[in-house]
Amino acid sequence: MSKPAAAVGPGRPRDAEVDRKALRAAVQLYAELGWAKFTVDAVVRRAGIGKAAVYRRWPTRERLITDALEQALVLPAITIDTGSLEADLRELARSTMDHHLGPYGLAGLRLHVEAHAYPELFAELAARLRHSRVLEARAIIRRAIARGELGEHASPTLILDTLLGGILNHVLATPEELRAEMAARSPRYVDEITAFVLTAAKAVHPAP
Amino acid sequence: MSKPAAAVGPGRPRDAEVDRKALRAAVQLYAELGWAKFTVDAVVRRAGIGKAAVYRRWPTRERLITDALEQALVLPAITIDTGSLEADLRELARSTMDHHLGPYGLAGLRLHVEAHAYPELFAELAARLRHSRVLEARAIIRRAIARGELGEHASPTLILDTLLGGILNHVLATPEELRAEMAARSPRYVDEITAFVLTAAKAVHPAP
Repeated sequence: MSKPAAAVGPGRPRDAEVDRKALRAAVQLYAELGWAKFTVDAVVRRAGIGKAAVYRRWPTRERLITDALEQALVLPAITIDTGSLEADLRELARSTMDHHLGPYGLAGLRLHVEAHAYPELFAELAARLRHSRVLEARAIIRRAIARGELGEHASPTLILDTLLGGILNHVLATPEELRAEMAARSPRYVDEITAFVLTAAKAVHPAP
Repeated sequence: MSKPAAAVGPGRPRDAEVDRKALRAAVQLYAELGWAKFTVDAVVRRAGIGKAAVYRRWPTRERLITDALEQALVLPAITIDTGSLEADLRELARSTMDHHLGPYGLAGLRLHVEAHAYPELFAELAARLRHSRVLEARAIIRRAIARGELGEHASPTLILDTLLGGILNHVLATPEELRAEMAARSPRYVDEITAFVLTAAKAVHPAP
């Protein structure tokens, strides 16, 4: 399914579908192999697209990976605002679980690991990813306080660490051979961990 | 501080301190660079020890990294059994925080990421690491049920995901420039997250 070519740069048409394939292949290869083995050629082979088009758009592997991670991890941040703390936390848990189970879950974790090994390349990207998630999550808690669902000194830190980290731990702690089973059961797990964290949040930071 | 050489193998003395330096350097380099860039030569340089001794003991980089990760990550598993659920969970939280803040924290996370990229080398090690932690943690919950501190159907999964994952998320979500501050504050955070998770555990799985 090819989208119509868009005119970009000095008179050269560009195919959005080719870009999309290149970016997706880049994130997958990065997740699998890491930065040390990441090459533009490998991305071209994985995506099954023309080499010239990829090199024209991304002349270096650095530009390709930062564009790819930006679009896969940072930009998809969504605003969650359902009107209730419970539904907001459940939606946050669900989107976090979907991310970890999806094609880009491992890429996000690797980005955090490699931000230490290659800070000049990945530290700023990792920081922006962290920042966008923290802002979104803090807004959920702030609105819950404003609605009187939590006490005014409720700290987002414990609520979000236990909810988001709990889901990450759940995925990491599941052996490969049980992954399909865990994925099938994940909607129920999302409900359970949401209820668990909400119980603690309301008990530790009771509404006035 | 060199320990006395021990006779190992067919008449060849071996220096335990050299081994220790090699293993420590191997885990650090693995954490920083990943498997793709890991070489025995780089470990020799980082450890500042004799090349011949290292190659004699670990003829391949595969043997060196699996030995090093085994000793750094799998073997240090401790048994926590203080007699109370709260103290057990706090001790589990403390040792988990120490691990993530210590020199081997990043190596453990990288092992989980690379178990997908190089399963033949790392999957079994990652599985044993996971298994040893799960067994230890399950024993804590089982004893709490036996003492009547939790209901008999209490599931270790949520308690351990939120406690261990919460600490991991806390460390991952802290930007490099705030890491020293976070480390200094970590004993207080360990108390807070232990109390938070314990509150939920007792409410969701009340004792009979």
